[in-house]
Amino acid sequence: MQHDDEIISKFFNPKTVAVIGASTDVNSPGYVTFKNFVDNIKNDVFRGKVYPVNIKGEELLGYKIYRSILDIPESVDLAVVIIPARFVPDVMEQIGKKGTQAVVIISAGFSEIGNVELEKRVISIAKKYGIRIIGPNGLGVLDSYSGVDTLFLPEKKRTKDNRELVGTPRPKPGYISFLTQSGAFGIAVLDYMAGEGIGLRRFVSYGNKADIDEIDMLEYLSKDEKTRVILIYSETIKRGREFVEIAKKVSVVKPIIILKSGRTEAGARAAASHTAAIAGSDVIYDVAFKQAGVLRAEDMEHMFDMAKALIFQRPLRGKNIAILTDGGGAGVMATDAAEMMGLNIIKLPEETYNKFEELKKEGVLPKFATNVNPVDLTGSASTEMFEIAADVLLRDPHIDGLVVIALHHVPMLDDTITDRFINLMKKYNKPIVACDIGSQEYACYLRDSFDEVGIPAYPTPERAVRAMHALATYGEYLKQRGFLDEYIKRWKPPE
Amino acid sequence: MQHDDEIISKFFNPKTVAVIGASTDVNSPGYVTFKNFVDNIKNDVFRGKVYPVNIKGEELLGYKIYRSILDIPESVDLAVVIIPARFVPDVMEQIGKKGTQAVVIISAGFSEIGNVELEKRVISIAKKYGIRIIGPNGLGVLDSYSGVDTLFLPEKKRTKDNRELVGTPRPKPGYISFLTQSGAFGIAVLDYMAGEGIGLRRFVSYGNKADIDEIDMLEYLSKDEKTRVILIYSETIKRGREFVEIAKKVSVVKPIIILKSGRTEAGARAAASHTAAIAGSDVIYDVAFKQAGVLRAEDMEHMFDMAKALIFQRPLRGKNIAILTDGGGAGVMATDAAEMMGLNIIKLPEETYNKFEELKKEGVLPKFATNVNPVDLTGSASTEMFEIAADVLLRDPHIDGLVVIALHHVPMLDDTITDRFINLMKKYNKPIVACDIGSQEYACYLRDSFDEVGIPAYPTPERAVRAMHALATYGEYLKQRGFLDEYIKRWKPPE
Repeated sequence: MQHDDEIISKFFNPKTVAVIGASTDVNSPGYVTFKNFVDNIKNDVFRGKVYPVNIKGEELLGYKIYRSILDIPESVDLAVVIIPARFVPDVMEQIGKKGTQAVVIISAGFSEIGNVELEKRVISIAKKYGIRIIGPNGLGVLDSYSGVDTLFLPEKKRTKDNRELVGTPRPKPGYISFLTQSGAFGIAVLDYMAGEGIGLRRFVSYGNKADIDEIDMLEYLSKDEKTRVILIYSETIKRGREFVEIAKKVSVVKPIIILKSGRTEAGARAAASHTAAIAGSDVIYDVAFKQAGVLRAEDMEHMFDMAKALIFQRPLRGKNIAILTDGGGAGVMATDAAEMMGLNIIKLPEETYNKFEELKKEGVLPKFATNVNPVDLTGSASTEMFEIAADVLLRDPHIDGLVVIALHHVPMLDDTITDRFINLMKKYNKPIVACDIGSQEYACYLRDSFDEVGIPAYPTPERAVRAMHALATYGEYLKQRGFLDEYIKRWKPPE
Repeated sequence: MQHDDEIISKFFNPKTVAVIGASTDVNSPGYVTFKNFVDNIKNDVFRGKVYPVNIKGEELLGYKIYRSILDIPESVDLAVVIIPARFVPDVMEQIGKKGTQAVVIISAGFSEIGNVELEKRVISIAKKYGIRIIGPNGLGVLDSYSGVDTLFLPEKKRTKDNRELVGTPRPKPGYISFLTQSGAFGIAVLDYMAGEGIGLRRFVSYGNKADIDEIDMLEYLSKDEKTRVILIYSETIKRGREFVEIAKKVSVVKPIIILKSGRTEAGARAAASHTAAIAGSDVIYDVAFKQAGVLRAEDMEHMFDMAKALIFQRPLRGKNIAILTDGGGAGVMATDAAEMMGLNIIKLPEETYNKFEELKKEGVLPKFATNVNPVDLTGSASTEMFEIAADVLLRDPHIDGLVVIALHHVPMLDDTITDRFINLMKKYNKPIVACDIGSQEYACYLRDSFDEVGIPAYPTPERAVRAMHALATYGEYLKQRGFLDEYIKRWKPPE
């Protein structure tokens, strides 16, 4: 039997894949999944080979259909199973005899609808052959780099007036690995990521988690360099104690963010409509996550707001934040949000305060700029003033991080601001997050430009502050565990 | 002296406008503002006449420049003043002599930078002549229907590689009137609205609020049919007691939503960096808003999520909500959010429960659909099943409102769902809000389609529930005041 890591790596980097249930019916999941591989081979994304397996049919998209995985003339690294549940045990025996050890079972109809015995049979066959399973009743795997894509939903969807719109997009390659218990929510998240321009490393939808679960994946992904942050959507965590132990190890290496639903009694009831729900157990989860250094997200947006910050910025050393803005109102909102989350919008130290007084007197900054914290450059702000003011703030050793609210509507603010701030980030090596409000062209363009240079940008002051708060919380945890200095020393922005 | 309402109406529907400070310098605010009117005349949006006034220049965009408002050969309904602050008193005298009673003062340089005396002089001149002022130090007025647009920021903004992007968009005509103390935030909000496709009725940025403030505007807009909801951004409310009194009157006619910042001590300090801040007074505001039936928004997004619901759906009669979903995870998230906000995700009454059992037995709904609340149709859901299940839920007299989570990734769900749900809405006259997750083409298209038929749609379960919660809170307030039945009877969806 191979070492677990070696087997799990076959899910993401198989040289040969068998799609069992690959079908000539273009509307079937088996067709879509097989075609994903074929397309990714054509586009030179997937560098392995793929074989269709089906009890019917001769040819699929130019590939010969095999009756059984046993008929494939070479060894198979990964089997993707998309056949009715009742046939899965037999097919698992064949997979076992073939020596394939990584199996994605897409098929539904197991414990989630009460067929517990069937699932147990599948697992016991897997154990016999040393097979690891992702699934059943999940969407399987998407690896944006290697081109493994077992998602059975086609990318396009038709409207009633017969237009084809992108319905199930695949995000661009990136640094987030996402593990999800819910397939439907997983797909929705991919849709969100693609639309928001957030990159994906690996996506795993393990459905019933009959075998591989968050614990296996955490361990495996902790060693994956391209994964800079691990996101988990979960409704129940089966092996609680082990989860905390593994998470504790991983969380000092890279951030883990969890969106755990079923927080309220009614939510927990909804999450476990068949099995018995442990109502009110959310506090226990909360404590466990805190112990393990796992950051908890309020909702999907929060999860990605945190993730973006944690990928592109190092954690904070303390909780003292400065806010720099060209809009007074937005500065007040950011201050409110920061205070409510427990960040300190410190009174500026005398030296820094006086420096601002000087700059105002010299006419370098607007005479009526406010140099308490937030520093409000007002509508007279120019890009250069932003740079000068940020330099003064970042230089101050009492300030741990900077929230820049650059509302682009101000006439003298232009898009050279991103280059200026990337220089400041390099100069001071302190975390910076940005905000511009608006949903039209220029606002989107400016936020994207910030994102591109590695300064995560958000569409509201509150969300920018919330991202900074994640950097502070993670930094605090690492400090407690004695890992902060090492982490920051090791930390490099993604290439 | 004319009645106040008549004067205030001149801000929004002037027959003649003088732009005092209209300038030939294309980069000047006076030029942009004058050009707004000229463009809107050309495009047949503004149906009145506009006159440029300046001490210099002969002609501007084909219009003769007048030296003084007094030289204009007809009466002037509205004067827009964009000249250095120190000249404003003299110009005000001329405006008064002309008999113009509506004046927008864009000019900055008054009490906001300590020039309290100058502002007082302007106000005393206004009083003498019976003039009402919007400003100074604000952006003035934007009326999406009449074409009054005093915003001095050009629509387009240039990037460093010389592309022209929409930087300060004007939203399409709609039903929201928005009052803002912060000009910068006001503009940012317009940008958000335009990008999100949210329509605007009237926008008022009154800056220092030297004269017209939220109280005047609330009273005036309460009688404006096109205004279906009034949004306010505020940092300080000067006439607190009067505000509560007026708001109490208006809030039983149409919803008022406030985003009041300066909630924390540090935020209040930031909001009032010159004047003395009353720290910790936020609780008082909170109580006052509740008394007055003013809904309080957490942030900008929340403000508009509520507004969209309150425009297109009537308030709830109670707090019992049903959730219908094709994604279990999203259903759990919605349930959690609802419980935390104080909505009831009730156990389905026996009759309704049994009806679902029947439909499942008959094969009309998926065998493994969950018919507790949330009702989860699973990934096997079709559009028709959504319609059938929603009908069962809405028919139940114990259910006050329905949250529909229609994740479009499910293969058998299509865009005819919006037509089906508009029929259900008409049939049962109960509030419905929708959710689809994703940021790519189909998700945006489906949400827009829901919005178009008057079912407000949101990109996360939590935001959909929050919108429903606003309908419940407003309904509860109206019920307390004894206005709910009348309000619902009178209520009609916008045309």
